[in-house]
Amino acid sequence: MPLILDCDPGHDDVFAIWLAAGNPALELRAITTVAGNGTLVHTTLNARIACTVAGISGVPIAAGADRPLVKPLATAEWIHGENGLGGPELPEPTVPLDPRGAVELMADTLLASAEPVAIVATGPLTNVATLIRDRPELLGRIREVVWMGGTTERGNVTPYAEFNAWVDPDAAAIVLASGIRFTMVGLTVTHQAMVTDAVRDAVAGIGNRTGAFGAELLDFFRSMNQEALGLPDGPLHDPVAVAVLADPEAVGSVLTRLDIELAGTETLGVTSVDLVGILEREPNAHVALELDAPRFWRLITDALATLA
Amino acid sequence: MPLILDCDPGHDDVFAIWLAAGNPALELRAITTVAGNGTLVHTTLNARIACTVAGISGVPIAAGADRPLVKPLATAEWIHGENGLGGPELPEPTVPLDPRGAVELMADTLLASAEPVAIVATGPLTNVATLIRDRPELLGRIREVVWMGGTTERGNVTPYAEFNAWVDPDAAAIVLASGIRFTMVGLTVTHQAMVTDAVRDAVAGIGNRTGAFGAELLDFFRSMNQEALGLPDGPLHDPVAVAVLADPEAVGSVLTRLDIELAGTETLGVTSVDLVGILEREPNAHVALELDAPRFWRLITDALATLA
Amino acid sequence: MPLILDCDPGHDDVFAIWLAAGNPALELRAITTVAGNGTLVHTTLNARIACTVAGISGVPIAAGADRPLVKPLATAEWIHGENGLGGPELPEPTVPLDPRGAVELMADTLLASAEPVAIVATGPLTNVATLIRDRPELLGRIREVVWMGGTTERGNVTPYAEFNAWVDPDAAAIVLASGIRFTMVGLTVTHQAMVTDAVRDAVAGIGNRTGAFGAELLDFFRSMNQEALGLPDGPLHDPVAVAVLADPEAVGSVLTRLDIELAGTETLGVTSVDLVGILEREPNAHVALELDAPRFWRLITDALATLA
Amino acid sequence: MPLILDCDPGHDDVFAIWLAAGNPALELRAITTVAGNGTLVHTTLNARIACTVAGISGVPIAAGADRPLVKPLATAEWIHGENGLGGPELPEPTVPLDPRGAVELMADTLLASAEPVAIVATGPLTNVATLIRDRPELLGRIREVVWMGGTTERGNVTPYAEFNAWVDPDAAAIVLASGIRFTMVGLTVTHQAMVTDAVRDAVAGIGNRTGAFGAELLDFFRSMNQEALGLPDGPLHDPVAVAVLADPEAVGSVLTRLDIELAGTETLGVTSVDLVGILEREPNAHVALELDAPRFWRLITDALATLA
Repeated sequence: MPLILDCDPGHDDVFAIWLAAGNPALELRAITTVAGNGTLVHTTLNARIACTVAGISGVPIAAGADRPLVKPLATAEWIHGENGLGGPELPEPTVPLDPRGAVELMADTLLASAEPVAIVATGPLTNVATLIRDRPELLGRIREVVWMGGTTERGNVTPYAEFNAWVDPDAAAIVLASGIRFTMVGLTVTHQAMVTDAVRDAVAGIGNRTGAFGAELLDFFRSMNQEALGLPDGPLHDPVAVAVLADPEAVGSVLTRLDIELAGTETLGVTSVDLVGILEREPNAHVALELDAPRFWRLITDALATLA
Repeated sequence: MPLILDCDPGHDDVFAIWLAAGNPALELRAITTVAGNGTLVHTTLNARIACTVAGISGVPIAAGADRPLVKPLATAEWIHGENGLGGPELPEPTVPLDPRGAVELMADTLLASAEPVAIVATGPLTNVATLIRDRPELLGRIREVVWMGGTTERGNVTPYAEFNAWVDPDAAAIVLASGIRFTMVGLTVTHQAMVTDAVRDAVAGIGNRTGAFGAELLDFFRSMNQEALGLPDGPLHDPVAVAVLADPEAVGSVLTRLDIELAGTETLGVTSVDLVGILEREPNAHVALELDAPRFWRLITDALATLA
Repeated sequence: MPLILDCDPGHDDVFAIWLAAGNPALELRAITTVAGNGTLVHTTLNARIACTVAGISGVPIAAGADRPLVKPLATAEWIHGENGLGGPELPEPTVPLDPRGAVELMADTLLASAEPVAIVATGPLTNVATLIRDRPELLGRIREVVWMGGTTERGNVTPYAEFNAWVDPDAAAIVLASGIRFTMVGLTVTHQAMVTDAVRDAVAGIGNRTGAFGAELLDFFRSMNQEALGLPDGPLHDPVAVAVLADPEAVGSVLTRLDIELAGTETLGVTSVDLVGILEREPNAHVALELDAPRFWRLITDALATLA
Repeated sequence: MPLILDCDPGHDDVFAIWLAAGNPALELRAITTVAGNGTLVHTTLNARIACTVAGISGVPIAAGADRPLVKPLATAEWIHGENGLGGPELPEPTVPLDPRGAVELMADTLLASAEPVAIVATGPLTNVATLIRDRPELLGRIREVVWMGGTTERGNVTPYAEFNAWVDPDAAAIVLASGIRFTMVGLTVTHQAMVTDAVRDAVAGIGNRTGAFGAELLDFFRSMNQEALGLPDGPLHDPVAVAVLADPEAVGSVLTRLDIELAGTETLGVTSVDLVGILEREPNAHVALELDAPRFWRLITDALATLA
């Protein structure tokens, strides 16, 4: 299945890139970057580094929005470090930056494909929303959007809002309203992808350069979680969205109603998911709720093993 | 400890009245009613019926607000039945209605007491908020407000809002901002007070009129839960707020930050509780999180056993 | 016509008191105070001073809300001076403060009257809203509410909001929704009551103590307007609301649609008046638009001439 | 001065196109269309018809957004008629539609110009906002944005909101926050461009095809104004924005503070212009307030006279 990965690396985005590039069911056609976990300069550089380390070449990488659609930018250096990818020594990227903008690369990729292309977004949905408004004639070429973002329970940036949804709620609302099949992969399910000691060791044990670099990322990530939250086993959010396409059996979803709060003072960006139908509105989104964690981690290590 | 119970009966409010009247640590000085679970006419009648059945006399009962402060009224007949107290045949109340308004009765009760009086509210906070704005000179006479309302997880009327908070969020914000010690007893803890078969049977087994009537209330309540949600064991929310005063050991709380959403389109009335301090604001509320359920149910049955 | 004057003196409120007390068509039954132009301590003291200077005795004065219903308090010392009544030397009031609260005094006044009583409010509507929620059984005894507040054009505290509406928009929404006949006397019409040199001199020329004190108030008011806005001829807002009752011919109104913005970030408290029916909603308020200024000023000077 | 005209014809947009094409100080490089006065299909067709009638060839015309960024689309058939251009019989356009999207054409036009290019927008700012988010590297090539939209007084679609601002307030906020020089040409100034009998006759009297077609447009426009508002002399909004560039002396502006309401229930899309600095925020926009009407209409007739 052909796919475009729109991301803001970030530690977990790197694993999303690797899973998308290394999984045999997927064909990664383009990587686009957006400001989110870090500034656009950092997230773009980090995407190129992720590809460089893993020997992923031939996948064009283009930079997109340097801020959300309407809100000012907020980033998450407190969890990902100054450069958005704290931990390992970062090599100079040898993978080039595509001269096109993210939306242009997305559009070209959609146009060049004989079949619809899926978009997996692991950051704020700014680029995808801009594509939708800018190139409405291409909507039919988007197979679906799978987004890491939102939550059905509590949030991680305000009591009820998840980071990617809160950074650009307007963009999320645009994508949701577009009619494109939409799957939300929120904290409810990503919190089942915990980076335990065993997970870290399995990644280190792959034995290639990617696994070694990945283990260093996970070490940093676990130390930040320990500091901030008192527990090292943090959730590796982003690759779960890729897993929805790589192995649908690994992730259980329901078709339900999702609305995004655009006006709240305390609740901006809240993803209001009506799991029990209390609002009696039409279902409009697939919401992932359950993860087969062992199967998920096997997807990850299998994918990394195919890389450099 | 002297207390005023402000309520909107409703099945669970009836148990709150009985616990407040029958528990030896508490001295119930006044009952005031508000629109919420039902219209004011019903909730007021039901408060008088609850006292009539249980032989509670000498506690004045006064009617208060027939609607929320600013929002239009919404009620919950779908769970409490047409008359707000579905199930048993309802007797004519023999307990009189006090001619004073709820706020006047509250004020008189506060003024007549040598020591500060606690207010337990088990409905929308409209009456308490009106008291605070109308009689600010009495604030020092209020020992604390314990409120059944809100949630730290999901809601029961919209995906994230609890009924009492959603019906009158402005009133909740007024009480919260007043500086009076405030304890929120939300769904997080009341969902630990599940009316199981065993609970129902224990109430029936008390052997007095109150227990028999209470068991009929619980039968209806369980059948509505079965219909609406597929499981009979619903939560008996309101008496948990009374339990906070009757037996502080039965309910575990934290001092934390609570903000109430007054402006959201999808999230009006959400109680945003910052359990981990991510917003870095001053704590302003006690939020109940844990219930010792066996201890709680013993409080209930012990109290009912002292009544008629 | 019997009336209650709810006010927050303030220079222009003083003239409202004097007009209500000195006009032969009106019978001033009670004065209640609210925080607004100044803190409640100042506005209450100033109401008593206004009566002391003018020899108004026998009208009970009671203090009400010291802050808006839901919002925090904002005051207007920048236009009214530190004590809310800059200019003349202020005498010790000899008129007593009624021990009742404002809402209690309003309720007693309504109950004691054989005929419905009008309420003129010249500050934020906090007290009136609290009365409505606290004593709904008295609504039928309120003949109408005439409120100085709002605007159909630009505002005076934000680009589109008028001060009294912006200080307590929730209270205004409550009064508006109560079904009581409601007249908004906003900036559109009060800006036609400009305190020119001639007006100031006419007040000074009355020749009694009230006129002399009034002229000093107008001098200060004109100097503040000169400083803040570059023109001495500022509008004397509040007595226009009294004039609506004293002499309906002096003020032209239309029955139209009024909605109050409770949620806007930039527009909180805006009074959205649909003069041309573009929203196709039911009319719900009388909105004053035109003032016969000479007639209005004659009302003022005639009233002052009857006082001490 | 080179310019791009982004529009949603609409009667007045047609005159904006003609002024931009016929004024000797301006060089119209591209026309882009957006949904607003009518659907995108109609506004795009109408732009081509406007050029066909006036013999404007060689200016590429591209279609853009078919709806606002975040909100659902609302149109104004009630004033512009079913096809957005009621009145004259509409010819088949002979001017082609550019195959590029509006944003792509804007970007290409900016890139092809040796000097910065101005953008005049006479509809909702959806396309301009999308360009800014999609192609941030081109911001330095935009000389300024002049927008017909907003108001400093009352609105025309809700009591305080103007149509173009209300249709896409998010887009307006994006453009305003971009740092590009921004001039708002709102109702305050466009209401000084009234289509009187004399104006209509002057257009008819030009004697060419454009003038004849224009007069028919104005006849329809005046009849709709008569019906809807009781006065035929309606304001010809859009060309005033072009006049700001064509003849800066014709339009008087101030540098002031503009904020756009994105959250209000009654006031969505209100352009809050702080003309007197009461909010003490930094100026961020030029706001047009005064029109030299005779000079403006001469610009119009002079421009039309140069066309076919």
